[in-house]
Amino acid sequence: MNVSALLTSAGVNTIICVGVFSLYSVFRKQPSLVSVYFGQKLAQVCAKRHGHFGIERLVPSAGWILKAWEASEEELFDIGGLDALVFLRAVVFSIRVFTVASTICLFLVLPLNYFGKEMEHKLIPDEQLNVFTIGNVKEGSRWLWAHCLALYIISCCACLLLYFEYRNITKMRVAHIAASVSYPSHFTVVVRAIPWVEEDSYSDTVTKFFSNFYASSYLSHQMVYNFGSVQKLMTDAEKMYKRFKYAHQEQHCASRLLRCGFCGGTATSFSILSEEPEISRGRSSFDGSDLRKKECGTALVFFRTRYAALVASEALQSPNPMTWVIDSAPEPCDIFWSNLCVPYRLIWIRRIAVVVASIFFVIFFLIPVVFTQSLVHLDKLKKMLPFFKDIGERKYLEHLITGYLPSVIFMIFMYIVPPIMMLFSTLEGAISRSGRKRSTCVKVICFLIWNLFFAIILTEAAIEHYQVSILDLGNPKNIPNLLARAVPSTATFFMTYVLTSGWVSLSCELIQPFPLICNLFYRYILNNKDDLTYGTFTFPYHTEVPRVLLFGLLGFTCSILAPLILPFLLVYFVLAYLVYRNQILNVYVTKYQSGGLYWPVVHNTTIFSLVLMQVIALGVFGIKKSSVAFGFTVPLIICTLLFNEYCRQRFHPVFKKTPATIMIEMDREDEHCGRMEEIQQKIESAYCQFTSKSLNSHKTTQQNESKYELDLTGIPPNLNSKLEDLEDITAPGKRTVQLPGSLVGRPTHLELDEVQVK
Amino acid sequence: MNVSALLTSAGVNTIICVGVFSLYSVFRKQPSLVSVYFGQKLAQVCAKRHGHFGIERLVPSAGWILKAWEASEEELFDIGGLDALVFLRAVVFSIRVFTVASTICLFLVLPLNYFGKEMEHKLIPDEQLNVFTIGNVKEGSRWLWAHCLALYIISCCACLLLYFEYRNITKMRVAHIAASVSYPSHFTVVVRAIPWVEEDSYSDTVTKFFSNFYASSYLSHQMVYNFGSVQKLMTDAEKMYKRFKYAHQEQHCASRLLRCGFCGGTATSFSILSEEPEISRGRSSFDGSDLRKKECGTALVFFRTRYAALVASEALQSPNPMTWVIDSAPEPCDIFWSNLCVPYRLIWIRRIAVVVASIFFVIFFLIPVVFTQSLVHLDKLKKMLPFFKDIGERKYLEHLITGYLPSVIFMIFMYIVPPIMMLFSTLEGAISRSGRKRSTCVKVICFLIWNLFFAIILTEAAIEHYQVSILDLGNPKNIPNLLARAVPSTATFFMTYVLTSGWVSLSCELIQPFPLICNLFYRYILNNKDDLTYGTFTFPYHTEVPRVLLFGLLGFTCSILAPLILPFLLVYFVLAYLVYRNQILNVYVTKYQSGGLYWPVVHNTTIFSLVLMQVIALGVFGIKKSSVAFGFTVPLIICTLLFNEYCRQRFHPVFKKTPATIMIEMDREDEHCGRMEEIQQKIESAYCQFTSKSLNSHKTTQQNESKYELDLTGIPPNLNSKLEDLEDITAPGKRTVQLPGSLVGRPTHLELDEVQVK
Repeated sequence: MNVSALLTSAGVNTIICVGVFSLYSVFRKQPSLVSVYFGQKLAQVCAKRHGHFGIERLVPSAGWILKAWEASEEELFDIGGLDALVFLRAVVFSIRVFTVASTICLFLVLPLNYFGKEMEHKLIPDEQLNVFTIGNVKEGSRWLWAHCLALYIISCCACLLLYFEYRNITKMRVAHIAASVSYPSHFTVVVRAIPWVEEDSYSDTVTKFFSNFYASSYLSHQMVYNFGSVQKLMTDAEKMYKRFKYAHQEQHCASRLLRCGFCGGTATSFSILSEEPEISRGRSSFDGSDLRKKECGTALVFFRTRYAALVASEALQSPNPMTWVIDSAPEPCDIFWSNLCVPYRLIWIRRIAVVVASIFFVIFFLIPVVFTQSLVHLDKLKKMLPFFKDIGERKYLEHLITGYLPSVIFMIFMYIVPPIMMLFSTLEGAISRSGRKRSTCVKVICFLIWNLFFAIILTEAAIEHYQVSILDLGNPKNIPNLLARAVPSTATFFMTYVLTSGWVSLSCELIQPFPLICNLFYRYILNNKDDLTYGTFTFPYHTEVPRVLLFGLLGFTCSILAPLILPFLLVYFVLAYLVYRNQILNVYVTKYQSGGLYWPVVHNTTIFSLVLMQVIALGVFGIKKSSVAFGFTVPLIICTLLFNEYCRQRFHPVFKKTPATIMIEMDREDEHCGRMEEIQQKIESAYCQFTSKSLNSHKTTQQNESKYELDLTGIPPNLNSKLEDLEDITAPGKRTVQLPGSLVGRPTHLELDEVQVK
Repeated sequence: MNVSALLTSAGVNTIICVGVFSLYSVFRKQPSLVSVYFGQKLAQVCAKRHGHFGIERLVPSAGWILKAWEASEEELFDIGGLDALVFLRAVVFSIRVFTVASTICLFLVLPLNYFGKEMEHKLIPDEQLNVFTIGNVKEGSRWLWAHCLALYIISCCACLLLYFEYRNITKMRVAHIAASVSYPSHFTVVVRAIPWVEEDSYSDTVTKFFSNFYASSYLSHQMVYNFGSVQKLMTDAEKMYKRFKYAHQEQHCASRLLRCGFCGGTATSFSILSEEPEISRGRSSFDGSDLRKKECGTALVFFRTRYAALVASEALQSPNPMTWVIDSAPEPCDIFWSNLCVPYRLIWIRRIAVVVASIFFVIFFLIPVVFTQSLVHLDKLKKMLPFFKDIGERKYLEHLITGYLPSVIFMIFMYIVPPIMMLFSTLEGAISRSGRKRSTCVKVICFLIWNLFFAIILTEAAIEHYQVSILDLGNPKNIPNLLARAVPSTATFFMTYVLTSGWVSLSCELIQPFPLICNLFYRYILNNKDDLTYGTFTFPYHTEVPRVLLFGLLGFTCSILAPLILPFLLVYFVLAYLVYRNQILNVYVTKYQSGGLYWPVVHNTTIFSLVLMQVIALGVFGIKKSSVAFGFTVPLIICTLLFNEYCRQRFHPVFKKTPATIMIEMDREDEHCGRMEEIQQKIESAYCQFTSKSLNSHKTTQQNESKYELDLTGIPPNLNSKLEDLEDITAPGKRTVQLPGSLVGRPTHLELDEVQVK
């Protein structure tokens, strides 16, 4: 590939991007697509439906970019929560560090690479791309100190920025904790592995235990019921409800729904069925003796103060560590009820099984990846494997196989992986949705780094140049050298990968093709003029964080070896910054958040990328026989690892435990303001196992009006909660689940910002 | 080596052992050696000095064996604490498991090995030892299922026993915690990294913080002073004291010493110097404004209840995890004051440095070990390295080098290692003596396993049979095969190692040669008739636990490969059981204990040994081409690892954290009995930074009388505390430090049990 080909490719991709972005700017002005592009807004405000039609609705505009750019950090925090902010900080970090890296590498390293060998240079557009890589520098060159210097500058810059970001985010997390005054989770703990006493129910055992040992701070508790058995009851109830509804067409039914707690929960089936006296009396039916048998050994226990809950969750309770296991509770909307019923004694073995399964999955996924990659090199394959010779005879088949099939297979693989990892994380026994998503995120990162970065490099190396057999990899000493040889030669591939996968994925993210097609399909093919409210989706951190981190890894590892990748990467990150801000502001809702727990993941992955960059550079300096550069790189690696350890000591504990003094001060303030009573009353009803979560449950107090309109839509509660489960699992093919029109509410007063402008 | 040679060697060693044991039984009856063999008793009781002389004092007897055997577990617990009991349980576990292993292997595996190949057998005494190893079984033998069965039985038996021991010891630990009502450490936490506030002293900052956040439970605190600066003050004071003492010869000085706390602390220099008014008023002089500058950012904080202290030590206090670091406090006699002053921000880097240094030390110690080992094979070395040819010419030199030098070098190395590891652990920043000793113990175990087991096997393999170069070891897949080939052939060496190092080390432990010689030297050469009280020593867990575990490792790995080792090992463990019981009962004192924290170390090492045994067996079955046995071994390894994980979940948390409910119940009981006030008064004076620890401080309440006699000996306090430091570091060459006669007290009423019997 030469420079002009690369530029052509970049041009084509730029045009695609600009086109898609323009299309988006038009689409978002169409009132009929409001449900696709303003899920977040829909969930928040009552908007007017039909604006006036005007020509300006068809003219592309850059207004959304401006809006995304102008949104302040506070606004983003309000809408997307701390996690969104952390994700955007990761993007900003990447922009900053790669700006520095681009400057250094393009003006210092690139010329050195280009003039690294005495050779006849063609005109720049005709020049092959590998002339710009470190592969072009001759062995023993005295100019390798410049690469080493660039390595130092990039590493130091990255570490400094990481430090400030980590410090900043730690502060934000602390402030977030201190500001979340009305969070019921602060007062609540999840008690698992309650021991079974013959004569008592679990509930009695909990009462006895806590009123014995935590008499002064224990408030009350709430048992968790076996999901399966109660769910069956719920389904029966739901059927009854439907029959009832369709038979009598009583429209005022919704207004009778009982509300459960202040978490914005809506009707339970039981309250809807209040006409039948034997199942009536709302929650009290759960306390019946028949349900007692369906209690699982898990309970939510509420305390009078935050500090008491914190302390109870951190101490080892019983001399038998397999009983009375106490964890801090997730938020009501974050809690993952079905995993709460998993017996605690199985959790450890599940966890081991999942870790083993994940490792096997990640490693053996290498086989299809390598196979797919090797298809690109069909001509070389033909020499090695005679089986492919027949295929090679037919030209059109060859084109199909080399040009089209690999990327399709690759894309399919990439869409399969996050749901599978999500399934693994579910099996692992996470008790919160955010925890499950974070765990998935980590697994996907491992997967991508191994199967996208290493597998491609090694396949390239094996097929293209060095005929390395997989068996050679057994020896760990070979790996730096192998990487050092392979990375510069695969840099071209990574460049096009950034251009296509990176840029195009952002366009896809923006235009949301799948919901868009579904919307159009329903509207124009099925001629269903009802507005479709898709389930609102939470931000897919488990696919987006790994993607951004993977591009970061590519950037770091290629920076001094093949600096040409950096400008494209920088463009990617700037676009990502705008697009993700826009999406957070408009599309995704924040039902739950982890409180910035993604940052340690980002930090650790970035440190891994840095060290990998340095190890590869070490290998390159070794191959190029530059002992000075080699010698200077070793302390850099040690310093980077020490820096990481320092950050782990200095910041990470805040992400593992909640600082006690903050809780004490919050308690004191509540006491001082006399809010304590009120809060305690609220928390006792905050957690409802058998209720549909409202669409914007976090913001109950501010947005009571809009919530009432959106909540009471008559969606059967457990259908909605099933959607929540599905949503997370099918996240990469986002918005695949749709509610049947009849069950969907009609927000009739949409007032969208763009429509207002007009 | 053939069987008769082995039996001869065993016979010689038996005779040596019997001789030494008899000698010991005579020596221990000599009143002049009381200080050597009854350090523990000396520290406890007032004994009469001079018994009657009789012929029975010169007749060997087995009475001590009977006494050691008969001592009950309660007695051992009272004298040696939980750690001693745990150590003895480890020995008992070894006896049990190797009894089973011996039975299985001698009656099932040994005959199969012996008749494994069709060959002409000589008479048993002339048979070579390798005929009894698995090396003698022919490839593809159908009888390898028996080895696999033996492997299963030994593994299952070991796991079962380990499980019961772990459960038992967990119970004992819990009971020990619940029984230790008057431990001041339960009420105390160590606060490190107190932030420096410009206008306040550290002490004021602590007061403010705890009376702000822990107002209801905070009792008081005690600052830790910079050891260096105060020590200088102390030394000056001591000089003054000496001058004062020798000038006036005031013998009644000792009776005036002020006592500090109930921890059995004795005089501070300041109280001795109470004649000089400007330094007088005991502890109050520490609070002077000049000393305020010598405060380091560490304090001991006392709480009103155990639960409050526990909770404070487990929570993360401040949003900055590098300030207000709270750990649970060690016992007053266990605390390691000088490490408390190490700035907390340096601890993590010290820890990393020590880990790196330890790894380097362990790995590079391989070089002298391999060199030493290779000297044994001088004839083979001569072929490989021409340098040795000249030496080989002179016969006597060769004998010296092959027969004598290696073991001497080896012994010297082995005596150097524990003090170096202790030094490492000190630098690591352990705040308790028991923690430091445990950390040393772990390091020594790693060292022994690597440098004694692996290094010897690999050296043997390299020189003797397979010409493996060190570079081949880079590939981890080779290691099981290599071990499988090398272990049977090194079994002979290990057998003699057990006979010599194992049996002889027990004799040494019993007869305590170094203190004995010192005693005799003082008594008969220097003609110093004064009795010598050596510093009493705590049990050297950091050398003895690793030794027992190493022999366990040898037993497991050799059991099915070379079962002849097992009887010798069993004898070793039985002797160890008797000898260590005797030593715990008579020689060592228990100044501090870790509360059974050695058991997880024992457990993990045993699991490691088991897995290693299985992996080696896997390699052997692979080499012997027995696919059935190979296939059956794989699930065994997985099950063993799962079992370990289960134990880690089920028992280990109790060894990391203290169960909260126990603390709450203890608090409640104290409250109920009205002891709380009294205890709170005591704890405030329990910790004295500048005092000599009494010899048997734990048993203060029971043994007040004897303590008074032993404590007030006028030893300058910091000289004694220096001795304590030295004692731990120089432990393998035990009792090297002696007090000058003039400073040593005279316990004049010794009543030893044997003397009483007469």
